[in-house]
Amino acid sequence: MGELARGLNFPGDLKKLSPDELKRLAAEIRDYMIRTVADNGGHLAANLGVVELTLALHSTFDSPRDRIIWDVGHQSYTHKLLTGRWDRFPTLRCYQGLSGFPRRDESEHDPFGTGHSSTSISAAVGLAQARDLKGEQYKVVAVIGDGALTGGMAYEALNHAGHIKANLLVVLNDNNMSIASNVGGMAEYLGRLRSDPKYFRLKAEFEHTVGRIPVFGKKVVSTAERLKGGLKYLVMPGMIFEELGFTYFGPVDGHNITAMKNIFQRASRIKGPVLVHVVTEKGKGYGFAEAAPERFHGIGPFDLSNGRPRGKKQGLTYTEVFGRTMVRLGEEKPDLVAITAAMTSGTGLDQFAEKFPDRFYDVGIAEQHAVTMAAALAAGGVRPVFAVYSTFLQRAYDQIIHDVCIQNLPVIFAVDRAGITGEDGETHQGLFDLSFLRSIPRMSIMAPRNEDELQHMLYTAVHAAPGPVAVRYPRDKGEGVELTAPSLLPWGKGELLKEGDDLLIIAAGTRVGAALEAAEKLFWQGVRAALINPRFIKPLDEELILTWARRCGRVLTVEDNVLAGGFGSAIMELLEQKGLHLPVKRLGIDDIFVPHGPRAALLSYYHLDAAGIYEAAVSFAGAKKAKGTR
Amino acid sequence: MGELARGLNFPGDLKKLSPDELKRLAAEIRDYMIRTVADNGGHLAANLGVVELTLALHSTFDSPRDRIIWDVGHQSYTHKLLTGRWDRFPTLRCYQGLSGFPRRDESEHDPFGTGHSSTSISAAVGLAQARDLKGEQYKVVAVIGDGALTGGMAYEALNHAGHIKANLLVVLNDNNMSIASNVGGMAEYLGRLRSDPKYFRLKAEFEHTVGRIPVFGKKVVSTAERLKGGLKYLVMPGMIFEELGFTYFGPVDGHNITAMKNIFQRASRIKGPVLVHVVTEKGKGYGFAEAAPERFHGIGPFDLSNGRPRGKKQGLTYTEVFGRTMVRLGEEKPDLVAITAAMTSGTGLDQFAEKFPDRFYDVGIAEQHAVTMAAALAAGGVRPVFAVYSTFLQRAYDQIIHDVCIQNLPVIFAVDRAGITGEDGETHQGLFDLSFLRSIPRMSIMAPRNEDELQHMLYTAVHAAPGPVAVRYPRDKGEGVELTAPSLLPWGKGELLKEGDDLLIIAAGTRVGAALEAAEKLFWQGVRAALINPRFIKPLDEELILTWARRCGRVLTVEDNVLAGGFGSAIMELLEQKGLHLPVKRLGIDDIFVPHGPRAALLSYYHLDAAGIYEAAVSFAGAKKAKGTR
Repeated sequence: MGELARGLNFPGDLKKLSPDELKRLAAEIRDYMIRTVADNGGHLAANLGVVELTLALHSTFDSPRDRIIWDVGHQSYTHKLLTGRWDRFPTLRCYQGLSGFPRRDESEHDPFGTGHSSTSISAAVGLAQARDLKGEQYKVVAVIGDGALTGGMAYEALNHAGHIKANLLVVLNDNNMSIASNVGGMAEYLGRLRSDPKYFRLKAEFEHTVGRIPVFGKKVVSTAERLKGGLKYLVMPGMIFEELGFTYFGPVDGHNITAMKNIFQRASRIKGPVLVHVVTEKGKGYGFAEAAPERFHGIGPFDLSNGRPRGKKQGLTYTEVFGRTMVRLGEEKPDLVAITAAMTSGTGLDQFAEKFPDRFYDVGIAEQHAVTMAAALAAGGVRPVFAVYSTFLQRAYDQIIHDVCIQNLPVIFAVDRAGITGEDGETHQGLFDLSFLRSIPRMSIMAPRNEDELQHMLYTAVHAAPGPVAVRYPRDKGEGVELTAPSLLPWGKGELLKEGDDLLIIAAGTRVGAALEAAEKLFWQGVRAALINPRFIKPLDEELILTWARRCGRVLTVEDNVLAGGFGSAIMELLEQKGLHLPVKRLGIDDIFVPHGPRAALLSYYHLDAAGIYEAAVSFAGAKKAKGTR
Repeated sequence: MGELARGLNFPGDLKKLSPDELKRLAAEIRDYMIRTVADNGGHLAANLGVVELTLALHSTFDSPRDRIIWDVGHQSYTHKLLTGRWDRFPTLRCYQGLSGFPRRDESEHDPFGTGHSSTSISAAVGLAQARDLKGEQYKVVAVIGDGALTGGMAYEALNHAGHIKANLLVVLNDNNMSIASNVGGMAEYLGRLRSDPKYFRLKAEFEHTVGRIPVFGKKVVSTAERLKGGLKYLVMPGMIFEELGFTYFGPVDGHNITAMKNIFQRASRIKGPVLVHVVTEKGKGYGFAEAAPERFHGIGPFDLSNGRPRGKKQGLTYTEVFGRTMVRLGEEKPDLVAITAAMTSGTGLDQFAEKFPDRFYDVGIAEQHAVTMAAALAAGGVRPVFAVYSTFLQRAYDQIIHDVCIQNLPVIFAVDRAGITGEDGETHQGLFDLSFLRSIPRMSIMAPRNEDELQHMLYTAVHAAPGPVAVRYPRDKGEGVELTAPSLLPWGKGELLKEGDDLLIIAAGTRVGAALEAAEKLFWQGVRAALINPRFIKPLDEELILTWARRCGRVLTVEDNVLAGGFGSAIMELLEQKGLHLPVKRLGIDDIFVPHGPRAALLSYYHLDAAGIYEAAVSFAGAKKAKGTR
């Protein structure tokens, strides 16, 4: 614990600290945070940017009585340190340790959990209305980044809050970045607010000048008065927010605690919705992060002295192979375009973006727009690939149905971070995509067993998909296999990897490798398991699957997706439709949310590794022999 | 065909018509439209509002070369009449007739299908970018209502279009309504633009006045010049759109064809995104619709002479029973609040809204915000009910997972228009909710077999739900059963409606009635079918289902939901998890989108009525006897 932090009782004691002490405390927090993230990995740049902002908030408001909601929540580390989690902080993002995001079940200081972007204003409206209905007295504060403000639901909430005059405070944490550089008309607007002092110094000057004009001055003033709202535009920098019904303050320096405290105090005395525009620097206080905030957005363990990742780089990730393949396909197909929702480097599209800037779109944190735009790009005759994390694609579920699949438009979804994603936890696991995509008519789904197959699947999607298609792959290293030249896979066909007649194992995507290992071990135990890599989750290779299901008499399915409506259910549905009533056992994630922890450990915990598959197969195939059914 | 319309070749010949002829044509179109909707039902008020706007667009642009996209699309009737569908118009909304919405497969003049709100600007961005990438030359126009502008994805698209300076035209069709009165800060902003002529007459006056000031005038002008953008606010009414990167024109009278043609021509010569603000009157030209535009938004067949619905009113709809129950529950529970996304009367909440205005929220067309706000209301200690159509709930899929279910907050979803909804067609069927809701951990789902059970389920949800719960019911009349006093149902328990040992039928929701009829007919054919009304789709009543499944040896499931991941799959999953390998047959909607047509006819077409269930049961139970398995 830092020297100053030791012996203080947070957050209450913050109010006693002098500006100088707060500054020293900020330094202690930064030091502790940098060291912890260097060990555990995490979101560094955003957290370094809001140290002073968090101190100012907690020295103004009374958490947990007052509610502070952190949009996205990956910037809540200082908040966690100041609200009873200082000692547990080294467990950050570890299995059963502190979450990297605010969670209602972790602390009473986390009034509303976050993880995905742009939810905080909606949450603040709900809490503020509940408070008023119950006649309670507390403040509600939402802290939202300018990046998150590109998400449509933030605007829906601003619009509604302004309309009902909800009593709440929105702190706009403006660092001119979402994760990469920010995009959009709104970002440019904020840029003008930040950079143009003329917007702010004008009021006094204008009134002074006009007031001194003897005759015409009056005319001007009367013209101005007739403008009512019009005059406001001259003097009010946050006019867009004002028009939506908010009172706007700012911009204020987000590293000046005293200035922020003053403005928060003033803001909290105003009735109705208030927006305080705070300008911060992402990565502040750690040179390497200031210089490359995007790289330090979400980062693995790194070396403190040089900011470089720890450990040797071994093999390519699926994301990297996707990025390389996109460049290759982009060279070959001039009508290929790529889309990201504020995740250029996260999805591996940076090289594509650099090489083909005219065929690359970063739409901001706007998955809904991205999907409908992709549908229209396809309708307009080009070939769009939307690269997106599985968990964020949930945001565009309706657009996938309504704009892509009903119209059968050949949009390619590169669904990264599908399955168990690891340390980001519940809000970021990609465990629903097989279920929600599979139930949509006209959607095809592929899942590669390794990084080489990912290349072929992308190639096949781009060259041969008859309609919408999703390729889902994990946040993980590949298996280290050789990367062959991308080529066409037969549409809708799987591959038999192993013959057998005791049991058919069908494993989806990366679970194929574990299943193969299990099948080999089973062989030495006298259980001859056939193994199919289906490649296509939809349409299924009916002939291959039915042939071997009949031969083996029982089927074991494996997936890293929820079991409800997942891949295993697709297999059961196929058997039912064909009137083939065979025993099936499904391995996958049961009806729970999966917490944070290392991907490999979680896969093992949920029996989705080779050992888990082996054990399930033994008991299932054993049951066959014991019962002697069929 | 109207006198003038006869003999003209649309849309090309429109350009030859004089202003007077266009006016006459508008009258002919209105007459034809009113008569057709009086016969078939449909969206009347919105279509009456855009007759002149559509004529102005088609006399300015060259469809199908130029692309016109109708947001939501329920206002596209005039467009359909002018683009080769005049003669087929009387088949509007009939099975295999014209769709009530634009469809790519219906006409080359429909470049992008719509149905749900707020997608058109994203579609326009995609088409415009595809055009530019391919070096083609055409105009892209999106027509979007002020109501649709409350949807977040419209803002995402504006933001992106402004950023990339996309060459497209957005026509803002501002009738100060979405379906009911519009809500939101943006609506109030548009209201100021519409109503305050000071905004528009000022530019000349200001420059004139200031220019004449000898000395100080220069100072003012120089101050003004230093403002750059600042001055714009004085003279530019559409400043929000300007700030987002659009060139703004308007407002212009949306019933003055000549004025609109002029402005569209000017607008189409400008590079970059342009927004033309058109003010129209919903219901224009039919007195009854002008007086009650909300009632004439979507309407069944009506009597031309008085605007009253045709046919006698028989029995209550599920929606009406929901509305009454909400009033009753609202009286009883002071912490009950209700939320709608611009569907107050559509969801039956009008009486609740009137009676409890402080506990009612219309958030605009903003399902994402609605769900997260509901989660926060629950976190804040009140009991929210979000009433929403199944198809629109798809918009908030991520928020249901991320904000409601991960946090296990007791939000109640009243999912109206679930299952086959009828004449609105593919985009409006509620065929996915069982699949997408069921796969989310912690979500409970109920489906009432009739309108009386709907009351009990709402009562149970409000009083006893341990977490999030959805109650799904159709757009339909009830069965005409007696409405008893709402009371508590045992949580997670189904009911056995009929004993039998040849076959177990489990039917979800309203399919129970049809299944009961089928089961009775089966009895007289010697097939003794047991029948379960599960009440809970999740959690399933395992004991009841397993007991009777074992006794009968085979299970037939019935649902009006897609089969992929639906209710039948839930039953198969339960049997698999319990190691009970029994033959199952599932009835539901196979992997297709269901077109428009009458609900009863579609249910019959897809074998989900009593006859369909009977036939399936006979062949399935017959198979049992023939094969003699088990």
